[in-house]
Amino acid sequence: MAETKANRPRRRGRADAKAAPFERKTNYRNLKNPFPPMKVFSDDQIENMHETALRTLEELGMRVLLPEAIAIFKAGGARVVGDMVYIGREMVAAALASAPKSIVGRGGASERDVTLELGSLVFQPGAGAPNATDLVRGRRPGSARDFIEYTKIAHHYDVFQMMSPSVEPQDVPTHLRHYFTMQTQLELTDKFPFVFARGTPQTMDGFRMLQDYRGVDDETFLSDPYCYTIINTNSPRTLDIPMAQGLIDFARHGQLSIVTPFTLMGAMAPITVAGAITLSHSEALAGITLTQLVRSGAPVCYGTFTSNVDMKSGAPAFGTPSHFQASLAAGQLARFTGLPWRSAAGSASNTNDVQAANENQMGLWGCLMAGATVIIHSAGWLEGGLSVSYEKVITDAEVLNMIAELCAGAEAGPDEIGFEKAISEVQPSGHFFATTQTMERYNTAFYEPHVHDYANFGTWTERGSEDANTRATKVWQGILAADSRPAVDETRLGTLQDFIAKRTEEGGAPPES
Amino acid sequence: MAETKANRPRRRGRADAKAAPFERKTNYRNLKNPFPPMKVFSDDQIENMHETALRTLEELGMRVLLPEAIAIFKAGGARVVGDMVYIGREMVAAALASAPKSIVGRGGASERDVTLELGSLVFQPGAGAPNATDLVRGRRPGSARDFIEYTKIAHHYDVFQMMSPSVEPQDVPTHLRHYFTMQTQLELTDKFPFVFARGTPQTMDGFRMLQDYRGVDDETFLSDPYCYTIINTNSPRTLDIPMAQGLIDFARHGQLSIVTPFTLMGAMAPITVAGAITLSHSEALAGITLTQLVRSGAPVCYGTFTSNVDMKSGAPAFGTPSHFQASLAAGQLARFTGLPWRSAAGSASNTNDVQAANENQMGLWGCLMAGATVIIHSAGWLEGGLSVSYEKVITDAEVLNMIAELCAGAEAGPDEIGFEKAISEVQPSGHFFATTQTMERYNTAFYEPHVHDYANFGTWTERGSEDANTRATKVWQGILAADSRPAVDETRLGTLQDFIAKRTEEGGAPPES
Repeated sequence: MAETKANRPRRRGRADAKAAPFERKTNYRNLKNPFPPMKVFSDDQIENMHETALRTLEELGMRVLLPEAIAIFKAGGARVVGDMVYIGREMVAAALASAPKSIVGRGGASERDVTLELGSLVFQPGAGAPNATDLVRGRRPGSARDFIEYTKIAHHYDVFQMMSPSVEPQDVPTHLRHYFTMQTQLELTDKFPFVFARGTPQTMDGFRMLQDYRGVDDETFLSDPYCYTIINTNSPRTLDIPMAQGLIDFARHGQLSIVTPFTLMGAMAPITVAGAITLSHSEALAGITLTQLVRSGAPVCYGTFTSNVDMKSGAPAFGTPSHFQASLAAGQLARFTGLPWRSAAGSASNTNDVQAANENQMGLWGCLMAGATVIIHSAGWLEGGLSVSYEKVITDAEVLNMIAELCAGAEAGPDEIGFEKAISEVQPSGHFFATTQTMERYNTAFYEPHVHDYANFGTWTERGSEDANTRATKVWQGILAADSRPAVDETRLGTLQDFIAKRTEEGGAPPES
Repeated sequence: MAETKANRPRRRGRADAKAAPFERKTNYRNLKNPFPPMKVFSDDQIENMHETALRTLEELGMRVLLPEAIAIFKAGGARVVGDMVYIGREMVAAALASAPKSIVGRGGASERDVTLELGSLVFQPGAGAPNATDLVRGRRPGSARDFIEYTKIAHHYDVFQMMSPSVEPQDVPTHLRHYFTMQTQLELTDKFPFVFARGTPQTMDGFRMLQDYRGVDDETFLSDPYCYTIINTNSPRTLDIPMAQGLIDFARHGQLSIVTPFTLMGAMAPITVAGAITLSHSEALAGITLTQLVRSGAPVCYGTFTSNVDMKSGAPAFGTPSHFQASLAAGQLARFTGLPWRSAAGSASNTNDVQAANENQMGLWGCLMAGATVIIHSAGWLEGGLSVSYEKVITDAEVLNMIAELCAGAEAGPDEIGFEKAISEVQPSGHFFATTQTMERYNTAFYEPHVHDYANFGTWTERGSEDANTRATKVWQGILAADSRPAVDETRLGTLQDFIAKRTEEGGAPPES
């Protein structure tokens, strides 16, 4: 986008850039949510929902498909009948008491550490998509190239403080895929990485690579999470084998699980916001309880991702009023438990159009006003997660950057109010281009967009009438060309490569299900 | 859009629509803002800004170009030097005390009345554009046809509770234009109409037409506003002839002025949010004071529209972090005064693309969290107001409808939490398609979009891969074809037509400046 800006006419002969005393500095790495949290239900209603969730776990139970998890629940006091686990409220209460309320996720550099607690605000780009799409190459099954490129783009924007499992690299064999995704994350970014919970062998491989590459001994690894995973229950009320195994493995090794029932109102959850979130809450509590039974104090995030289906077609919808209200309700329950929590934005649109922008931003505001700690799928998600769009990552990142700007607040001291330095310097109908206040601040006053364009219609037309999507293509191409990966320790990279070669020769580790 | 929905496959053999007990009903006409108001500055800072605004009026003064207005200010106690008017804080305090805190704008039917007070939420589509644009006919100078069509579209959506001066009908001679715009508003909608303040003769023509058509005698007209105008100061610190005249004429006749300095930080206002809003506040207070000097208790709204320029090009920008914070600051000052107030969304984009959607929604959320009573330019505005887009009105109205849905809140009683009617009816890994709760609510549970499309990628591709913009064209075409204008009283229409014919023969009323 640099050329776009450079080509713009300077309307006024103001001072040169070198005369401005400051460079504009931003810090999007450690954000605090500036928005007042919003309620959709009364405190009594929230307590009733929590009570109903406890009753659901006690009377209806969870189906748990992993024998080891059943055994852990049973040892912890649960009543077990076959694969049905009935979890008492005292078990849940103990888990909520022991789960940490503040978690520091460790990046590859201390300035990449990310604090997860109520009030902090962390964004992730869209994740888990089988397909990738962009305007140059069209929509295709996700590939290793896509995963690499998406990692570089996510690394570029500070506002994405955690990595996400962006797109599935379908051209990498499944028994070797986790080596590829971990190596890519380690080489191309120093942000807090993601590890899929697809069985213990893959998880252990991931932990090993991470510890070796980042030089973390077992004790340190156990004391703070250096990676995280997302655990989706199979709603309603089922915890499957890899997800249960993931909760156990991550808790046992001190790594972070984000327990997120993914529920669509009217399909795998009740049709009401209150019902869907109550069910989601019960399932999240079951997962959280398992982590604390494995290891008291294990890092775990409360999670929700609840939207509605279109009742005419059964298709999932996102960024809807019900999605928004579900985020609010989940936020109230998260604050009720005191745990950091994740929510999600997203879009059902099939292309990065106005619908996609509006849905994602509606979903985002629901999360922001719900006080979500981590907002996943905050950029790039299309088709309800069936694809990630390169252009949409860029256009959504513009919104996220602007929200990050809002986190910084604004000043209103005498210099900012500016009676002397601005208001009294200008005659009626005059202009403020050259006031003392403007001269001090014109280089730093305003957010500078990377894809939004403020050219007037004539200039914009002369330049080819490019819409934001078309410009976004140039932005991601520029990011890939710049390739601003962190410095690489060649020794550690060698160790990593050797490990992968050895494990590949041994047959890798197929995903478990 | 009806065909799009009808063509969708019904995935499940659920009950027919006739089995559902309820029809979905919405009420978007009387909205209360459900969002907690957000502060950007401390209460002390806001008080300092108010004090600085008072000092600005007392020490620096307003330039007032209309002798009648100068005389009124002088009679009210202001110090006058030439065309400079210095307004004492006691005058401002008296005006803020006498200005009504709740105003009912009267529509053509009682269900179209609109209450303006802190806490109520009213949307207007984008206004004041010289150009119109749509995908079928391209961008062109605004015409009578555009004004008529835009009026029909604005009438169609209940969420637009006030009419706006959408697009300038440039093919209607300026001395007759106000007859055309008033007749169009009266014939095509019963919503609270807009009258431009372009000199006393036009204003009086407008009042006459409105009173005759709606059967309102002088006394009743004086007691409640039946129309409104927007008064923009010429920032900094200038009140020009037509604007001053408008404030006087509207106040004298009990009609509503919305006093809105339009300020761009770094151009006609200080470069800081605090400075720009302080200046804007002082100008708004000057305008409000004039209305109360003319007639104590005259209906008047506090207004702000402050965004920033791009300091590289001088071009106006909208939906930026500074725009958002300016709305928040204005909201704090409005609450400080207790008056209903208007703010604005908007976009600088040159086409209805992702930038346009994102900017408008960012601007909107700034207004929503600022507790704005009236949000103007909430749909359709492009190019910083140089054009209105038919498609953008449709796509933005989708967002506004979803926000209106949020105003209604959600229930969380036992039936909604649904332990009996939903959660306990479904086995683990089952579905909720046929629970008692779902069967009672599937027809009414969720907002139904008019332009967003939830079809999956395959279906969407088969249907022609239409983006939201393309679908929006069909939506506005459908609205125009339906032409759901209110019932017309032929006698009153005849009287209106006679009046216009007579006034046209007399030479009409040229705008004054």
